[in-house]
Amino acid sequence: MRAVGMAARSASRYIAAASTGQRNAALLAIRDALAADREAIAGANAQDLATAQAAGLSSDLCDRLALTPARIDAMMMGLEAVALLPDPVGEITGLSARPSGIRVGQMRVPLGVIGIIYESRPNVTVDAAALCLKSGNACILRGGSESLRSNMAIAACVKSGLAEAGLPETAVQVVDTADRAAVGCLVRMAEFVDVIVPRGGKGLIERISDEARVPVIRHLDGICHVYVDDGADLDVAEAIALNAKTHRYGTCNTMETLLVAEAVAAELLPRLGRAYADAGVDLRGCTRSLTWLPDAAPATEADWETEYLAPVLSIRAVRDMQAAIDHIHRYGSGHTDAIVTRDHGRAMRFLREVDSSSVMINASTRFADGFEYGLGAEIGISTDKLHARGPVGLLGLTSQKYVVFGDGQVRL
Amino acid sequence: MRAVGMAARSASRYIAAASTGQRNAALLAIRDALAADREAIAGANAQDLATAQAAGLSSDLCDRLALTPARIDAMMMGLEAVALLPDPVGEITGLSARPSGIRVGQMRVPLGVIGIIYESRPNVTVDAAALCLKSGNACILRGGSESLRSNMAIAACVKSGLAEAGLPETAVQVVDTADRAAVGCLVRMAEFVDVIVPRGGKGLIERISDEARVPVIRHLDGICHVYVDDGADLDVAEAIALNAKTHRYGTCNTMETLLVAEAVAAELLPRLGRAYADAGVDLRGCTRSLTWLPDAAPATEADWETEYLAPVLSIRAVRDMQAAIDHIHRYGSGHTDAIVTRDHGRAMRFLREVDSSSVMINASTRFADGFEYGLGAEIGISTDKLHARGPVGLLGLTSQKYVVFGDGQVRL
Repeated sequence: MRAVGMAARSASRYIAAASTGQRNAALLAIRDALAADREAIAGANAQDLATAQAAGLSSDLCDRLALTPARIDAMMMGLEAVALLPDPVGEITGLSARPSGIRVGQMRVPLGVIGIIYESRPNVTVDAAALCLKSGNACILRGGSESLRSNMAIAACVKSGLAEAGLPETAVQVVDTADRAAVGCLVRMAEFVDVIVPRGGKGLIERISDEARVPVIRHLDGICHVYVDDGADLDVAEAIALNAKTHRYGTCNTMETLLVAEAVAAELLPRLGRAYADAGVDLRGCTRSLTWLPDAAPATEADWETEYLAPVLSIRAVRDMQAAIDHIHRYGSGHTDAIVTRDHGRAMRFLREVDSSSVMINASTRFADGFEYGLGAEIGISTDKLHARGPVGLLGLTSQKYVVFGDGQVRL
Repeated sequence: MRAVGMAARSASRYIAAASTGQRNAALLAIRDALAADREAIAGANAQDLATAQAAGLSSDLCDRLALTPARIDAMMMGLEAVALLPDPVGEITGLSARPSGIRVGQMRVPLGVIGIIYESRPNVTVDAAALCLKSGNACILRGGSESLRSNMAIAACVKSGLAEAGLPETAVQVVDTADRAAVGCLVRMAEFVDVIVPRGGKGLIERISDEARVPVIRHLDGICHVYVDDGADLDVAEAIALNAKTHRYGTCNTMETLLVAEAVAAELLPRLGRAYADAGVDLRGCTRSLTWLPDAAPATEADWETEYLAPVLSIRAVRDMQAAIDHIHRYGSGHTDAIVTRDHGRAMRFLREVDSSSVMINASTRFADGFEYGLGAEIGISTDKLHARGPVGLLGLTSQKYVVFGDGQVRL
């Protein structure tokens, strides 16, 4: 792994210095290579799938592993879409003159070498490589062991695309071993790797965060809340509460706890109870909310801390917005929280005081997403507070250095 | 320490929600409290100094420990200056409409709880508290054990200022024990502390980085370079090379290695050799440069990797700018590097390709400083790549969360 790290560090200089046109040409050349090799990729994936099925991998995980023709198309379209995004690298902002005569500004630059660790979803190999390349970074990609053959077939296309664009093939390296020790090594090579992005379940991310000596961009949980305020438009509240829970159950921006101001609980909860019953959502309510939710089970303390990722919802009646904010700070995960309200003052206070990576007024938590936010692409969602919060797109893979323009100034 | 952490987390909600006026009022109230208590502070400091001198602390360290009347004045003026800076918190940028109808932007918010660990320089207690308060953060301050009495006297003023402004006294907590285990605990309390800023020597920073489970903003070394390009104005080159080395020897933005294009070495190096000799700077030259520097000692490999922090300079003649960039990437510390050149293309390429927190054209490395850059104040200089690079002012103690304004939108 140290050889991989050294090669990545060395390639990162070239890729950072490459022109926008050259990096875009590489993205399109990779797309063409995927088109030319799609049979070989599908064949390698079929082998991976057969092995995984024989080993008894769950149908859910096999579904993620499968590179269907539609998924291969999506990988190719993703490369095109990333090539079309504006280049974040090299932008100079804030350039202004100082009393000393120097002019000082900030230039956006790649981070350097990015290590991405993910599960057996081979399409991530292309998506991650595309974002890193576009943002001028070298990367080391380590997918789940079940997808090794698929990833190596994709890696061959990435290499040929890089070579065609005149960029070093080591700008994107796919780790070619299923050995778990490789991950432990990758996340500790601080001299060669600038940031680690783990993508996957909570277990994977916690393990990596514990081991890492390199900074990590990550999110652990998505315990998202919707708070329905006193005086809210209840049609809006019902639509948002239903969408935030039922649009998709397995996503990190799905609502897991609904907080309702007591003043509207008597009117709203019976309506929502029927709607959730129709959608097949199991409810767990606080003692007070059970008054209006006859079919709900009593919620326990553990419910407030649980990311169900399933058709289950906890509901709590709260006295007012302050109680809702207190609940969110105590039990939330800092991912995405929304208020439904008509009151301007409370809306703005909620926006300011809730300390989550996305805070919303009168919108479904399901909007917390790089594409919905207009980032063009997304490498993940960060619930950390340093560097990038919320959906992380190309900008999150860059930082800003200071640049100084002088004409001979010295300090007095 | 866990009680301290819990109190800080709780106070961080109040301080983040406090108005700009309230936070500024606290800064000015702390200034007034310092003015009222300056005798008590000077007395506590005299005790610290007496103990330190009796224990044989070096005169350099005793100098840093001393709160002279001028230094107490400077602390008070610092509080005023920070109160006058614009409030970074709450700014919303980039708010724009998306096809779904939501409007998405980013709001600047405090990081939360900042832990600052520093040596026995009690004026840092006030400077650090001021920056954290202004940026809406709670903080836990842990100064060197020799300054404990001084710090506690200052802490009393900070508390009374906070109370007078109606803010929780636990928004700034000064750790009141000299026990080293407190630091180990502080840097691991990820649930209560959002970022650690170590200020001090390399040993302190390395120890803290190794132990920390909380993200760290830091810089390890300042091995800064000036490269004098082929065709540079040699008067400008001489002035900058002299200033970057001799303006101050002990600062992290002082040049430690001078790189000179071979084409100008024969003319520039004898001039510089005389100037450095006049300034009392010892030179260590590469074999080639020794031709023009008869009094210099031969440089060893170790010289290129050394932050002298002293009147010592290593000098290397290089073939061209590419060789200079290669040297900087191999031996530099990513702090500050400058080029002296008349060539526009090479100037812009150096600016782009040198991967340091500050990169300069025709200016002395000594300008890498929060005040010189117009940040108003500085908590340190970061050579990390995530989050903040270069001088870290108020903005570096904040981050941006996403905010979404809707009027009932749900995802389709």
